[in-house]
Amino acid sequence: MSDSDTSAGVLAAVAQLVAAVGPPDALAAAAAQARHEHLIKPPGSLGRLEQLGVALASVKGECPPPIPDRPALVIAAGDHGVLAQGVSAWPAEVTSLMVRELCTGRAAASALARVVAVQVTLLDVGVAGELPRHPRLKGSKIRAGTRDLAVEPAMTVEETARALLAGAGVAEQLVEHAGVDMLLLGEVGIGNTTPAACLTAAFTGLPAERVTGPGAGAGGDVAALERKTGVVACALELHAGVLGGDPLATLAALGGLEHAALVGVILAGAAARVPVLLDGVSTVAAALVAAALAPDAVACMIAGHRSAEPGAAAGLEQLGLEPLLDLSMRLGEGTGALLAVPLVQAAAAALGEMATFEDAGIAQ
Amino acid sequence: MSDSDTSAGVLAAVAQLVAAVGPPDALAAAAAQARHEHLIKPPGSLGRLEQLGVALASVKGECPPPIPDRPALVIAAGDHGVLAQGVSAWPAEVTSLMVRELCTGRAAASALARVVAVQVTLLDVGVAGELPRHPRLKGSKIRAGTRDLAVEPAMTVEETARALLAGAGVAEQLVEHAGVDMLLLGEVGIGNTTPAACLTAAFTGLPAERVTGPGAGAGGDVAALERKTGVVACALELHAGVLGGDPLATLAALGGLEHAALVGVILAGAAARVPVLLDGVSTVAAALVAAALAPDAVACMIAGHRSAEPGAAAGLEQLGLEPLLDLSMRLGEGTGALLAVPLVQAAAAALGEMATFEDAGIAQ
Repeated sequence: MSDSDTSAGVLAAVAQLVAAVGPPDALAAAAAQARHEHLIKPPGSLGRLEQLGVALASVKGECPPPIPDRPALVIAAGDHGVLAQGVSAWPAEVTSLMVRELCTGRAAASALARVVAVQVTLLDVGVAGELPRHPRLKGSKIRAGTRDLAVEPAMTVEETARALLAGAGVAEQLVEHAGVDMLLLGEVGIGNTTPAACLTAAFTGLPAERVTGPGAGAGGDVAALERKTGVVACALELHAGVLGGDPLATLAALGGLEHAALVGVILAGAAARVPVLLDGVSTVAAALVAAALAPDAVACMIAGHRSAEPGAAAGLEQLGLEPLLDLSMRLGEGTGALLAVPLVQAAAAALGEMATFEDAGIAQ
Repeated sequence: MSDSDTSAGVLAAVAQLVAAVGPPDALAAAAAQARHEHLIKPPGSLGRLEQLGVALASVKGECPPPIPDRPALVIAAGDHGVLAQGVSAWPAEVTSLMVRELCTGRAAASALARVVAVQVTLLDVGVAGELPRHPRLKGSKIRAGTRDLAVEPAMTVEETARALLAGAGVAEQLVEHAGVDMLLLGEVGIGNTTPAACLTAAFTGLPAERVTGPGAGAGGDVAALERKTGVVACALELHAGVLGGDPLATLAALGGLEHAALVGVILAGAAARVPVLLDGVSTVAAALVAAALAPDAVACMIAGHRSAEPGAAAGLEQLGLEPLLDLSMRLGEGTGALLAVPLVQAAAAALGEMATFEDAGIAQ
C-alpha cells in the first residue's frame, strides 16, 4: 500500500500538487508587452488578443510563447445525490448516456472538438450507471454519485481529494506523455449546476439567487428555478460551518466528484505551466476552488466564454477573468472552452509570427 | 473589345451580378431550426451557434448545411487621395509595404489565417506604389489610388464598377475553380477608414461624429479625430447630391477602390450562395453598399466581430447583423473575420454531426 492510498497520503498528495503551482513570469509578460509595440500593426489594434498573448507568455515563461497546438479537453463525469430534491428536469441515467455519446463522438463537444482539432478524454469519477470500456474513457470512479448535499456533505474530504487527484493524474498523463500543451475543462453530470451554484456562492459570498440558473432546464420554468434556488440556499445554511475554511472541506460538503476532478486538472495544468481553458458554470466553480487552494493557479486560467448561467459570470468576476466569447451558450461538456481554442492559438501566433516595423522597413 | 470593356458593358455586368443574388431558403432554415430541437442538448443551449446554423442552412439551401472547410480571405488593397487632408498618421507608402508583408505571410492576418487554415488572396485594385509579382497577389489596378473625396468624387462610376467586377472575378475564381466554400473580407489601405466612415454615414443616415473613429491612429489623439470627423462631414455635404440615389454613384463619390472590390466579393459570394464573413469598418461599409444594391445579399453575410471603430457597429446595426466576437480589435486585414471562422464551422458541425435524442435512446 503506497502513501497515496491512505487518507493522510491522499491529503499530502493534494498539498504537494498545490505547492507545485508557481507564480506567473513577469519578465516574459513584460517582454511580450514590449514586443507588441513593435509588430506591424497600429499599437493596441489586436485588442484582447494582445493581453491574451501577454498572459500566455507569463504562463510559459517565454516570449514569444509557443502556439498551443496540441490541446486536450478533459470532460469529468459524475452524478448527484441532490437530484432527489427535484433540481433537474432530466433523470440521472442521462449522465451515462451522454458519456456514451461523447465516447462515440456524437455529442456537441465531439463535433466542436473536431472543428478545432482538440483531443477529448472522458474521466468517470462518479457516474451512477455502468459504463462500457472505451479508449477515450478513463475510469476512476470514486463512488456512484455523490450524497445529497441538501441533507449531508456530498462527499467525504478523502473522496474529494481522491477525485481531485484522479483529475490531476489524467492532466499529468496528457501533458507529460502525450505532449498536450493546453488543457480544456468540460463536464457531464445531470444536476451538477446545483453543486456548482453552491460552490460559487461559497467562494464568492454571493446569495443563492445571484448564482443559481436554470442549468439544462427550460429558461422559462420559474417554479423550477425557485425550487433549485431554495435548495442552494438551504444547503449553504446547512453547511455554513465549512464556509470560509478549508477549501477542500467546502468542496466536499457542497460540490460534485466531477468538480473535484476539474480542480485537479487545473492544479496539474498550473503546476506544469500550461494554459487551462475554462468552460461554463461547473468549470468556473472548480476554478474558484483551485484559486482558493493555490492563488497563483489563476494566472494559467483563460475564460473561454461567458455562459448564460449566472453563476459563471459571477465566478469569473471573482477570479478577475474576462471571457473571450459571449454566445449565450449553456451546454457544458467543454463546448465554450473549445470555441476559444483558436483565439488562444491566434494570440500566440501574432506574437511569434508577425514581422516588426523594423523588419518591414516602416518608420514608426 | 468585349461588352464588359465598354462603360455600358461594365454597368450591365454589375447589374447582372446584382440580379444573380437570390433570396435565402426559408425551408432549409425551418428544417435546421426543427433539427436543433432534437439534438442531444438542452433546447437552445448552443445559443448564437444555433441561429448561425440556421442561417447557414438558409444560405446553402440544405439542412444540415455542409461545414465550410475551404474558406478563403480576399484582402483588397487601395490608396486614398483624401490622405492629402491629413486624415492618417501613416504615409501612403505603408499600403504597399503591408501588401508585401501579407504576400510573404508576416502580417497579422497571415499569422491568424494559418491558425484557422484560411487561404489568403490579395487583390490590388488601387495601390499607389508598384508591387512585386507574387502568387498570392492578383493585379487589377484600376488607378493608383482614388482622387481626394474631400474635393471631388473619389472615383468615376465606371472605375467603381470595374473595381467591383475585379473583386467579383476573384471571388468567382475562388468559388468556382478552387472549391472555396466561404469568403472572408479584408482590406489594406492607409486612410481607408475615412471613406469607410463616409459610406457608413451615407447608407445609415448617421452624422459624421457617430461613424468616425481613430482608425489606425492612436485612440487618444482628440485633435486628429476631430480633423478626420470634419473631413467626413464636409465630404458628405459636398456629395449630398448623390446620397440616397444610385448606390454605385454614392460609392464612387465617397468610397475607395478596395471598398468597391469588396462589394463585388460580397455580391459574387451571395450569388454563389456561400457565406461571406465581414471584418471591420471598411468591410461593413462595403456590406452596406452591397445591401443597397441587392438586399438579399444580407442573408449570406456573417459579422465576424465588432470592431472598436464606431462605424462598424453602426453599420452592422443597420444591416441587422450581430457580431460573433467582440475583442476590441481594430486592425483590419480581415483579422476579425478570420477569428470567427471556427465558430461558423462549429455551427454547421453541430447541426450535421450531433446525435438526436432518439439516436441516443433518451426520452425527450
